[in-house]
Amino acid sequence: MTPKHPSESLTILTDLVLPSETNPLNNLFGGELLARMDRAASIAARRHSRRITVTASVNHVAFNRSIPLGSVVTVEAKVSRAFNSSMEIFLDVWIEDRESGIRTKANEAIYTFVAVNETGHPVSVPAIIPETELEKERYDAALRRKQLSLVLAGKMNPHDATELKALFL
Amino acid sequence: MTPKHPSESLTILTDLVLPSETNPLNNLFGGELLARMDRAASIAARRHSRRITVTASVNHVAFNRSIPLGSVVTVEAKVSRAFNSSMEIFLDVWIEDRESGIRTKANEAIYTFVAVNETGHPVSVPAIIPETELEKERYDAALRRKQLSLVLAGKMNPHDATELKALFL
Amino acid sequence: MTPKHPSESLTILTDLVLPSETNPLNNLFGGELLARMDRAASIAARRHSRRITVTASVNHVAFNRSIPLGSVVTVEAKVSRAFNSSMEIFLDVWIEDRESGIRTKANEAIYTFVAVNETGHPVSVPAIIPETELEKERYDAALRRKQLSLVLAGKMNPHDATELKALFL
Amino acid sequence: MTPKHPSESLTILTDLVLPSETNPLNNLFGGELLARMDRAASIAARRHSRRITVTASVNHVAFNRSIPLGSVVTVEAKVSRAFNSSMEIFLDVWIEDRESGIRTKANEAIYTFVAVNETGHPVSVPAIIPETELEKERYDAALRRKQLSLVLAGKMNPHDATELKALFL
Amino acid sequence: MTPKHPSESLTILTDLVLPSETNPLNNLFGGELLARMDRAASIAARRHSRRITVTASVNHVAFNRSIPLGSVVTVEAKVSRAFNSSMEIFLDVWIEDRESGIRTKANEAIYTFVAVNETGHPVSVPAIIPETELEKERYDAALRRKQLSLVLAGKMNPHDATELKALFL
Amino acid sequence: MTPKHPSESLTILTDLVLPSETNPLNNLFGGELLARMDRAASIAARRHSRRITVTASVNHVAFNRSIPLGSVVTVEAKVSRAFNSSMEIFLDVWIEDRESGIRTKANEAIYTFVAVNETGHPVSVPAIIPETELEKERYDAALRRKQLSLVLAGKMNPHDATELKALFL
Repeated sequence: MTPKHPSESLTILTDLVLPSETNPLNNLFGGELLARMDRAASIAARRHSRRITVTASVNHVAFNRSIPLGSVVTVEAKVSRAFNSSMEIFLDVWIEDRESGIRTKANEAIYTFVAVNETGHPVSVPAIIPETELEKERYDAALRRKQLSLVLAGKMNPHDATELKALFL
Repeated sequence: MTPKHPSESLTILTDLVLPSETNPLNNLFGGELLARMDRAASIAARRHSRRITVTASVNHVAFNRSIPLGSVVTVEAKVSRAFNSSMEIFLDVWIEDRESGIRTKANEAIYTFVAVNETGHPVSVPAIIPETELEKERYDAALRRKQLSLVLAGKMNPHDATELKALFL
Repeated sequence: MTPKHPSESLTILTDLVLPSETNPLNNLFGGELLARMDRAASIAARRHSRRITVTASVNHVAFNRSIPLGSVVTVEAKVSRAFNSSMEIFLDVWIEDRESGIRTKANEAIYTFVAVNETGHPVSVPAIIPETELEKERYDAALRRKQLSLVLAGKMNPHDATELKALFL
Repeated sequence: MTPKHPSESLTILTDLVLPSETNPLNNLFGGELLARMDRAASIAARRHSRRITVTASVNHVAFNRSIPLGSVVTVEAKVSRAFNSSMEIFLDVWIEDRESGIRTKANEAIYTFVAVNETGHPVSVPAIIPETELEKERYDAALRRKQLSLVLAGKMNPHDATELKALFL
Repeated sequence: MTPKHPSESLTILTDLVLPSETNPLNNLFGGELLARMDRAASIAARRHSRRITVTASVNHVAFNRSIPLGSVVTVEAKVSRAFNSSMEIFLDVWIEDRESGIRTKANEAIYTFVAVNETGHPVSVPAIIPETELEKERYDAALRRKQLSLVLAGKMNPHDATELKALFL
Repeated sequence: MTPKHPSESLTILTDLVLPSETNPLNNLFGGELLARMDRAASIAARRHSRRITVTASVNHVAFNRSIPLGSVVTVEAKVSRAFNSSMEIFLDVWIEDRESGIRTKANEAIYTFVAVNETGHPVSVPAIIPETELEKERYDAALRRKQLSLVLAGKMNPHDATELKALFL
């Protein structure tokens, strides 16, 4: 399979925050943002793999900024790295001020998707070749995250997680 | 107010066709597509005007292609022309084949939005300066559509609709 | 096939405006009204044709009056004219004042539906015989709208659109 | 207050059964039908009283017929009797066969609504004068149902429920 | 089939009241509560019978307390008695005060479900053996409700409804 | 503030997988499960703190098992540890086989919520005293997760993350 660039899977989902999606402080529910990011990430994974894709995991997501009712929210998703049948998707979430038009970063998130065939079995996906500086950084960090996830799941001995271990020594 | 380019209001809403949005033939309901286009057009109008915007009208929309369950649908909206407080928004709708990645045009639509203040009264918006060939074409045609809409509403004498009349002579 | 009267397809959908269906001014979203009208029109088309029906197009729809949260909205749909496998559906939208009970016209819209068989191919539908004055007016205008739609789609030479041309001469 | 006829509150809600509203047998969920009937009944109560209205109770509802995906369902609601601030609403639910057009009774239900002012306190409503045979029957039975409901709630001694007691003696 | 205890079918559905589920007084819509209770009752019926289950009827439901936006609502459902293929499900609905943590009873309801096979035909279910005082009370009353429902449906002569008749003599 | 036990915040949300919540393989969408877990976690956080609570972050969530349409899904949420104004919520997700009644673990997830006052500012919450073996394990691990989250956010030097560092040495 020919490797691909992250830009080939770029998916943009711009939509409003509707009244039915807000919490008692009139901000977007965390759960609704998680669901929108899941749909955008699933499309990015599909554009990269041209396969059916299913959510495998959601990495640490921090909700640093609240997103008020009526906001315009843009979710941007790109495949940051591929491993056999799994893909790490990096998501950036932006809100924009209606009057000034200024865009502010509201969130980042990382989802992992797996490509499967019609019976639900994993299938291989193309490798990723990062292009921009940010894409390269995220590509490198993806390996550490992969190791961390294997260590936390008890599937890798911490001493073999060479990339990760370096952080603490 | 400084005029703006159509590209400054470009809004992209890429999302899946979910099971709850399909008709008995398992294709996206016309009504659901109309609602998605309305949200995307409303954001484009807001990006152009930096105001609250409300739907004023929907021009002729043809549903030429059915859009099956599970499709990835991309709605792209741009302001094509502005008249005082109203904006014509041109929408292109694309679906893409999962296996080949080929994008196909599924629909076009034209919505009109009005910019209003907090009490709902119309306020002026910047003019549009088209850049690409397609934007220029759509900008010119917008005047004929405006005249047609005024004629059909009985607010303009057909003989004064010079741009439109030319079509039939 | 025996022709039918518009009244035989009359469809009434009376429902509330719920909080999840409103825009930042607390009025019904244009997109939600378009979706409700699509469902009512689809039932009217089905009552006329007794077939599966799919949205073919939406004609110019003007949103003249905003519809506030909590309103009772009545959508009334009737087939106004039939052409082979397609049907023009005329919709009237009313809101009523809770205290006085007075009904006010909030919108008009025209949708076109096509009757199809189980594989999605168009099938013939009965002709329409209008009865009331209003039904006759709408029946006649339907031909002009049909021509206009063909002209705008580039499928009819404006000079052959005799009904329509008369408007401008 | 001038008494009213049941026909003055007639509310018709015709809509489709959408895929998101069905159970594992592909029939309309009982809970979704209960919600539609609640909205229709609430509008009928409001048309009768011209007040804000809230659900007070739902009487015995039997789901005799399953309603398959894609059906056209018509809910018809009318006030059958009024007591001070409460109104009994009788609902008839119909489905129609797409090919033959034949309407079949799918359900009956009885809801009770109370009219309230802006602070939620009960206010009086007009009396009902039934016209048709069916309306008269339902009007008479409403008193027995009222007594039954008071007896079951422990708010009336069964021996004082003269209308009801007659049934068993 | 081995009889079961009500506790074996206990189903707890705790969820928030979201903005899209409220009426003009900002309280939970009756219809939405009916739908939640239907889903919880359906799961309790399924846990008792280990079959597909469908709503057969809803007994008298009184909405004594309004449930404001943002409330935490707990629906608890248990099978109270079984008759051949049908099960009576008793539901208790609680809301809790955020600051004091005190739980208050908001509603009671009784639904009847029928267990069916894959083709929708009724199948037998295990009997119920009540354990607590409250379960025993509800078990006994279930027979009176069953008779009442048969009498009201015209399927039992009031004079044969011995349990029920005793109430009025 | 008096410390509390995890059991005091236990929140159970049992519900069905509805057709509108499934992906093309007919399994529950990852995004929908994330949203349900967010609502349950938010209620657990509120029961512990008796305050308004907002999602602060979602830790690594692995979707190990797909959850088919029609499943009964139980989300159980408990506060596992509290830090000043933040609470770690541990969630266990179960599905149960309709025929055998056997419950299987489908997912685990960890959310962090912050307690805030009416203006959105963080406020203190009671400490947690774990009781069961599992609660103690989760309580201890919460500190390592807290350190990991601070390290990944660049807010703690990896060498100071003593609990975490021990894993790799």
